[in-house]
Amino acid sequence: MTAKTKKPCVVIVGAGFGGLQAAKALANAPVHVKLVDRQNYHLFQPLLYQIATAGLSSDDIAYPIRGILSKQKNLEFVLANVDRIDFDRQILETTAGPMDYDYLILAVGSQTNYFGKASLEAKSFGLKSLADANRIRNHILLRFEEASLTSELKARQALLTFVVCGGGPTGVEMSGAISELVRVVLKKDYPKIDINETRVILLEATDNLVSNLSKHLSQATIAALKRKKVEVMLEKMVEDYDGETIQLVQGDPIAARTFIWTAGVRAASLVDSAGLTQSKQGRAVVRPTLQLPTHDNVFVIGDSAYSESEDGTALPMVAPVAIQQAKLATENIKAQLDAKSLQPFTYHDPGMMATIGRNQAVAQIGRFQFRGWPAWLMWLFVHLIQLVGFRNRLVVLIKWAWEYVFYDRSSRLILGQKKESLANLEKSDLRNQG
Amino acid sequence: MTAKTKKPCVVIVGAGFGGLQAAKALANAPVHVKLVDRQNYHLFQPLLYQIATAGLSSDDIAYPIRGILSKQKNLEFVLANVDRIDFDRQILETTAGPMDYDYLILAVGSQTNYFGKASLEAKSFGLKSLADANRIRNHILLRFEEASLTSELKARQALLTFVVCGGGPTGVEMSGAISELVRVVLKKDYPKIDINETRVILLEATDNLVSNLSKHLSQATIAALKRKKVEVMLEKMVEDYDGETIQLVQGDPIAARTFIWTAGVRAASLVDSAGLTQSKQGRAVVRPTLQLPTHDNVFVIGDSAYSESEDGTALPMVAPVAIQQAKLATENIKAQLDAKSLQPFTYHDPGMMATIGRNQAVAQIGRFQFRGWPAWLMWLFVHLIQLVGFRNRLVVLIKWAWEYVFYDRSSRLILGQKKESLANLEKSDLRNQG
Repeated sequence: MTAKTKKPCVVIVGAGFGGLQAAKALANAPVHVKLVDRQNYHLFQPLLYQIATAGLSSDDIAYPIRGILSKQKNLEFVLANVDRIDFDRQILETTAGPMDYDYLILAVGSQTNYFGKASLEAKSFGLKSLADANRIRNHILLRFEEASLTSELKARQALLTFVVCGGGPTGVEMSGAISELVRVVLKKDYPKIDINETRVILLEATDNLVSNLSKHLSQATIAALKRKKVEVMLEKMVEDYDGETIQLVQGDPIAARTFIWTAGVRAASLVDSAGLTQSKQGRAVVRPTLQLPTHDNVFVIGDSAYSESEDGTALPMVAPVAIQQAKLATENIKAQLDAKSLQPFTYHDPGMMATIGRNQAVAQIGRFQFRGWPAWLMWLFVHLIQLVGFRNRLVVLIKWAWEYVFYDRSSRLILGQKKESLANLEKSDLRNQG
Repeated sequence: MTAKTKKPCVVIVGAGFGGLQAAKALANAPVHVKLVDRQNYHLFQPLLYQIATAGLSSDDIAYPIRGILSKQKNLEFVLANVDRIDFDRQILETTAGPMDYDYLILAVGSQTNYFGKASLEAKSFGLKSLADANRIRNHILLRFEEASLTSELKARQALLTFVVCGGGPTGVEMSGAISELVRVVLKKDYPKIDINETRVILLEATDNLVSNLSKHLSQATIAALKRKKVEVMLEKMVEDYDGETIQLVQGDPIAARTFIWTAGVRAASLVDSAGLTQSKQGRAVVRPTLQLPTHDNVFVIGDSAYSESEDGTALPMVAPVAIQQAKLATENIKAQLDAKSLQPFTYHDPGMMATIGRNQAVAQIGRFQFRGWPAWLMWLFVHLIQLVGFRNRLVVLIKWAWEYVFYDRSSRLILGQKKESLANLEKSDLRNQG
C-alpha cells in the first residue's frame, strides 16, 4: 500500500520508555520509522503494583501507541512479535511478516528472571506486564474469598500469608501496598476474617533494602515498612516454591499461597534468540556508542543493553537510562546519516524513589535525601506528570485522592478467569457454613 | 465460624439489579441474608457496549459487591456458582459447598440465546458480561491491525465489516457506538486505512427497530443511525455464521469477520438445571406473587422469571422489572414471616431509552417522546446517576466529557490475549510492506 520510499528506514523494536522516546526523537529526521511491539499500548511500568493491589485499572497506566504517535507523519506502528533477526541481510522475521531495516534500535526491555527454577516460575507471580498485575489482583482477592470459607486455622493462615521476594523498589512498593490493601480496605470487605491472621512478608537475600539508596534511607525504608505491618526478613535466600510452601536456603519454610517474585530481572528473550553477545542478566554487550560490536547500524538501549557507569558498575534497569540512551542512539543514527562522528553514552542519574503506601516514601536526588510525607508528595507528583495523556493524569489523580480520603480501593474486581477461579475454590474442598 | 442463628435464612442467587435490590430491601428485616454470585462485582449492564467500544474500562461500570454491602450487618456474600437446587430439602449445591435456606430468591438473570446454532455461538460475540465486552473490543482493534497489514481488497473489506444483529436497544447502541469509534477515533489511529472501506451493519429480523418505542421514535432511530453511517437492514433473518460469512435466510451473504449477536436472550441456564416449569425464553413460570407454583418459599424475579403485564404480553427483560420485583418479593417474604397475605406484582413502566452515539438518543416516558440532543442529555443523566458509587460517576463523567470534547476513546487497549491475537494475525498470512 505504501509507495517504496527512498528515505532510510529505522525500525524500533519495543514501545517501552526507550522505544517510545526513540520514535519521538526521530520525528523530524529524514527517515521512515517503524515501531514494532507485541502490545498495542505503552505501559507505565512504575505503577504496575497499583494494578496488582486494586488501586488503579489497566487503562489508567497504559495508553494506545497509535494514539500517542498519531500526529507523527514519518512513523508507522506495527503490532507484531519479532521472532528472529538476520543482521547481515538486515531483515526482521515477525508475526506480521518479514521487515527490512536500514537502522535498527532494539529496545526490548526485560523480563522476570527465575534463575532457571521451573516450579518457581510456574507457581509464583512476576510483575512485568498488565497480565501479571491483573493475575496478582485476582489471586489476592480470591485467597480472601477462600479464607472467608475456610474454618481450618493452618489452611486459613496460608491463604492469608502474602510473600514478596526482592528488596528493590518494586518489592518495597508491592509489599507496602498489599499490607495497606489488606488492613485498610479488605478488613472492611471481609468482616468474618480476623485481620491479625494475615501476614505480609518481604524477603531479601542481602542485608539491606533498596541498596541503591543511602544506608540512612534504607534503614528508614525498613522502619516505614514495619510500621505498615510488613515483616521484613533480610538475608533470606529462596530455594524453591511449590505453590504451598516457600523453601529457604536457611531458616524455616513459610506456608503461603501467594508468592510474588520481584527478585530478578533479565534482558528479554529476543536478546538470546538474536544470538547477541551477552553480559550480566543476559543483557546485550554494546559499544559506548550503543552500537552492537558487530554491526554499526544496530543499537541496543535500555534494560536489554549492557553498559557500565564510570565506576564500572552495570547501569540499572530503569526508565531514565532507557530514555537517555534512546536520545543518544537516535542522535548517533542522525550522525551516521550526516557522516559525522558518533558520541559515547554517559548517564545522568536523576535519583531514585520508592513509596511505601500512604504518606510514606523515600527519595534520593543527588546528595539530597527525602523521606516521609515530603518524599511521598514528591513521588505522587513525579509519577503523575510522567503518565501519558492528560486524561489519564486527571483520572489517576481523582482515584488517588479518593483512595486517600476514603481509605478505599476501587478496582478490586476479580476479572476474566471465572471458571478457573471457582474451580480453584471448589478444589480446595471448602465448605460454606450452612 | 458463624454461630447457628435462629433467624430465618434468605438466600439470594445473583447480584444483578434484582438480587442487589432484594439484599438491600432486607437490611432491616429479622432475617439472615446470603447473597451468592459467580462474580465478586455488580455489573451495570446498560453500559457494557461502552466497554466493547473502548469508551469505558471494566471497573467504571462494575463495583465490588462486598464494597456495596459492607455496612449491612445481616448480610453475607458468598462467591460461588450454584450447580443444583433441592427445593424439597431446601439446599443449594454450590462450588462453595452446600447451603441451606428458609427462603430463596432466584435472580439469576439471562444469557445470550443462540437458538441452538452451535457455529453461531462459537463464532459470534454475545454482549452479556465484562468478558464478552472486552473480547469484542480486543477483536475490533485486532481486525483494524490486521487490515492495516492486508493488501488484498476483499480480505480487507471483510476485516473492516462489523455486523450487529438485533434491533433492540443493545443492537442500536452497539452499532452506533462502533460506527463512531471507527469514524471518529480509529480513522486517526490508522491513517493507512481508507475509512470508506469500513461498513457497520445492523441486521433486524422484523420490519422495525426498538419496537417497544412508538412508530415515530423507531423511524427517528433508523434515521439517526443512517446519519451515523450505520447500514440498517430490516427483515433480515440470520441463518448461520462461520466466522467468515453471515448467511441470511433471504438475501446475499455478508462477508464479515466481526458478528455481534444481540438478537436473543433467554433465562440463565440454572432455570433449566433446577427443573423449573418454563415459559417463553426459558423463563420460570411464577405465581402473581412471584412464588414458584410448587414452593411457597421460593421466589423468582427479573429476567429469569416469566410474568405478564395487564395486556397479556411478557414483561421485558430490563432492570426496572427486576428492581420492582425484588421489592415485592422481599415484601412478600416479610408478609409470610408475619403471617400476612401476599401481594401480586404490577409493573410500573418508567419508560425506555436508547442512545445512538454523540448527541443522538430516543426516549419514551409514558406518553412523552424525546429525541436528539434533549433525549441524549437525559440518557447521560439517567445512566450516570444509576452507576454505583460516587467515584465511578465522577470518573465516567470525566471520561465522557473528555471523549465528547476531544473525539477520543481512551480504553482502546488490546488486553490479555497476546499469544492468541498475534497468532491470529500470523495465521491470516499477512505480509507487512517491507
